Amino acid sequence: MEITNSYIKENENRFLEELFGLIRIPSISSQSEHKEDMVKCAEYWRDSILAAGADKAEVMPTEGHPVVYGEKIIDPKLPTVLVYGHYDVMPVDPIELWNTDPFEPVIKDGKIWARGANDDKGQAFMHAKAFETMVKTNTLPCNVKFMLEGEEEIGSGSLSKWIVTNKDLVKADIILVSDTSMIDHDTPSITTGLRGLAYWEVEVTGPNADLHSGLFGGAVANPINTLCEMVAKVMDKNNHITIPGFYDDVIEATPEERELLNMAPYSEEEYKAGVGITALRGEEGYTTIERVGIRPTFDLCGIWGGYTGEGSKTVLPSKAYAKISCRLVPNQDHEKISVLFKEYFESVAPEYVKVKVTPMHGGQAYGCPIDLPAYKAAEAAYMETYGKRPIPMKSGGSIPIISAFEKVLGLKSILMGFGLGSDAIHSPNENYRVDHFFKGIETIIAFYQHFAKMQ
Amino acid sequence: MEITNSYIKENENRFLEELFGLIRIPSISSQSEHKEDMVKCAEYWRDSILAAGADKAEVMPTEGHPVVYGEKIIDPKLPTVLVYGHYDVMPVDPIELWNTDPFEPVIKDGKIWARGANDDKGQAFMHAKAFETMVKTNTLPCNVKFMLEGEEEIGSGSLSKWIVTNKDLVKADIILVSDTSMIDHDTPSITTGLRGLAYWEVEVTGPNADLHSGLFGGAVANPINTLCEMVAKVMDKNNHITIPGFYDDVIEATPEERELLNMAPYSEEEYKAGVGITALRGEEGYTTIERVGIRPTFDLCGIWGGYTGEGSKTVLPSKAYAKISCRLVPNQDHEKISVLFKEYFESVAPEYVKVKVTPMHGGQAYGCPIDLPAYKAAEAAYMETYGKRPIPMKSGGSIPIISAFEKVLGLKSILMGFGLGSDAIHSPNENYRVDHFFKGIETIIAFYQHFAKMQ
Repeated sequence: MEITNSYIKENENRFLEELFGLIRIPSISSQSEHKEDMVKCAEYWRDSILAAGADKAEVMPTEGHPVVYGEKIIDPKLPTVLVYGHYDVMPVDPIELWNTDPFEPVIKDGKIWARGANDDKGQAFMHAKAFETMVKTNTLPCNVKFMLEGEEEIGSGSLSKWIVTNKDLVKADIILVSDTSMIDHDTPSITTGLRGLAYWEVEVTGPNADLHSGLFGGAVANPINTLCEMVAKVMDKNNHITIPGFYDDVIEATPEERELLNMAPYSEEEYKAGVGITALRGEEGYTTIERVGIRPTFDLCGIWGGYTGEGSKTVLPSKAYAKISCRLVPNQDHEKISVLFKEYFESVAPEYVKVKVTPMHGGQAYGCPIDLPAYKAAEAAYMETYGKRPIPMKSGGSIPIISAFEKVLGLKSILMGFGLGSDAIHSPNENYRVDHFFKGIETIIAFYQHFAKMQ
Repeated sequence: MEITNSYIKENENRFLEELFGLIRIPSISSQSEHKEDMVKCAEYWRDSILAAGADKAEVMPTEGHPVVYGEKIIDPKLPTVLVYGHYDVMPVDPIELWNTDPFEPVIKDGKIWARGANDDKGQAFMHAKAFETMVKTNTLPCNVKFMLEGEEEIGSGSLSKWIVTNKDLVKADIILVSDTSMIDHDTPSITTGLRGLAYWEVEVTGPNADLHSGLFGGAVANPINTLCEMVAKVMDKNNHITIPGFYDDVIEATPEERELLNMAPYSEEEYKAGVGITALRGEEGYTTIERVGIRPTFDLCGIWGGYTGEGSKTVLPSKAYAKISCRLVPNQDHEKISVLFKEYFESVAPEYVKVKVTPMHGGQAYGCPIDLPAYKAAEAAYMETYGKRPIPMKSGGSIPIISAFEKVLGLKSILMGFGLGSDAIHSPNENYRVDHFFKGIETIIAFYQHFAKMQ
């Protein structure tokens, strides 16, 4: 819209200056010495939302870092968009690899360089500025609520509880999130799937103490050999997972969904070269994009046991351990999968070992149907600003709070991410393209217009 | 013999006193601060052999700790026995678990308590005193040579070279060694087999860096999963090793040998209870005694890769590692097996990983036929002193220098051990029964008599 675009243009420098103010607060959630910075950062957000035109905004304490809540209700009968974002950032180590101070943002080569420039200060702040633009230009077509947490990088523990007790407060029609990436600078995409996760630590015990491998080898089962053999049973030659019932709740993607999904640019040669491998390994019958997007996995994240030091030592160890994870897809329940795995892994344990399976953290997968009105609104918004239909993307990663929103609040989330894979989030020299910041604001505004019309 | 037994009886206290003098020298070969003690200990041995009646004895320097050599040639036409032993001992840590000073021997409950009381000062010194007894009672029936090293506990590096350059000096008809155990106090046994060893470190590489298990899991092979699957291929369901050619050189034991071997007392329930397991695992068609004595093995001594810290971390690691060993049996060449394993393990590696197999140390197995005249002489000796036919025992462990003696000197060794499994060698509170010390001397003397007659 001309009116909003003009407003953005006129306030360009101020928008950036205000974002820089947010970035300058070192809100590293995992480091207790930044506890006060977390509060300062929450207050900065509260003030930003109020200044942008919210009716109210407040910093709400939790057992951990506070939640920022704000709202503008223009008409209770109109639809409500709930914006979610996070104000905490990852640590900056190794600091010596940064070219500039991580908490003093600079613009160079068209990018903002700083911790949080993208994740998620830059991306979340687009929503504050889109909101302000609509308020100040009298183009806000629906109610808006803001919910920002300070623990996304450490598991969203406090927000998970907060939404349960603040269900009514955050009542809305859709959740809007910018905390993901698009395919590339010219190819917009909307993340429509996030995988869930189940994670276990397993302990396999053979003899009750480390034994002399000469005196006992051949008669007493070696728990490392046994663990390896048990692990080898979990995938068949087609890389299909053999745990009984594992796929029972997986909803097979329709041919249309698969076709759309595979429209994302993909070169097998580039993909392999990117990670330094000469051949892929994945489930028979699925493409790479499908394997990482809509299919569950079975991966060992760690293994250890016996002598692991320098040189050689002969020992028949007492114990072997592994950290095992499964990425899950929508409709697979991580708790049910956790039970299925435990039962299966115990069932394949031979009588000569004892097996202990300890479930660790887990999270549900998330899926957004592409015929959801809010999805259609987002699609229309991108077509307006990018001139292209965005590609619905399934991310192989997990954002557990998004599934929690669906479970607790009954709300779907639209993941409109404007980051790039090269933005180095979580790494030294994190950056975010300035043009993405402003195009993001425009696209968000367009979303609101289409979303309001579709209701 | 009455005459030798009387001599032993008369000199009982002196024999023990002299042994205690040997034990008091803290000859820990692995600790450089004991370098001078090693020389002192070698000199003590030299003096003991001379005092016992040797024609000559000397401390011969090596690059490491010295070798003690001594001899008494009564008639070049008579057979020659080469006694092998070691004067070095293991470290004493953890010192706080010792009930008495490890280097101040005490007699309590009929046992000598000290580091080296059994391994190998107590056992080797029986040979010095048996020799003295025969010399002083004019009953020595053949030539005797002594060869004592100070590096048995650290790999026998110097002696391995020394025997090559001193081949003629140690020319003999048989090697006699007391450095092993018997089945129990009432059940004499002769160790007729020692297993060999081949050892490798393997490295399996998937992607060129640790990856996000969500973003790549399902499409990029996980090297830990792959390593496990490769390991699982090395043994079939009968616990038979599948490496092509692995068993080619194994000489199957004759029914008589197997029968004799299985005469050793064995209770499966006690064996399992001893190591805290409820079921055994071993090669189909063989007993436990056979599995640890005359069959080769495939054991993982260590494994590691990915995240092994506390809690959970999702990662698709770049690398996985394992330390792998095979115990080998007589006639299997460890270098040949090493090549076979490397070829096989590389051949089972899927194209989506890179595998590096690094051979570590190895050693040949040793076998002593029970129809060897020297074995028969030992058998007769035990029958005389114990009133029982000794059981030929296959030890699952490895003593690489014994195989080196066979390879370099062309000599078999008779392993007449008088220790017990409960003697705590290498551990705190090492001990050796006083009656075993004296009965050992008697049995060694009896061996000489029978051996001389059989030539």
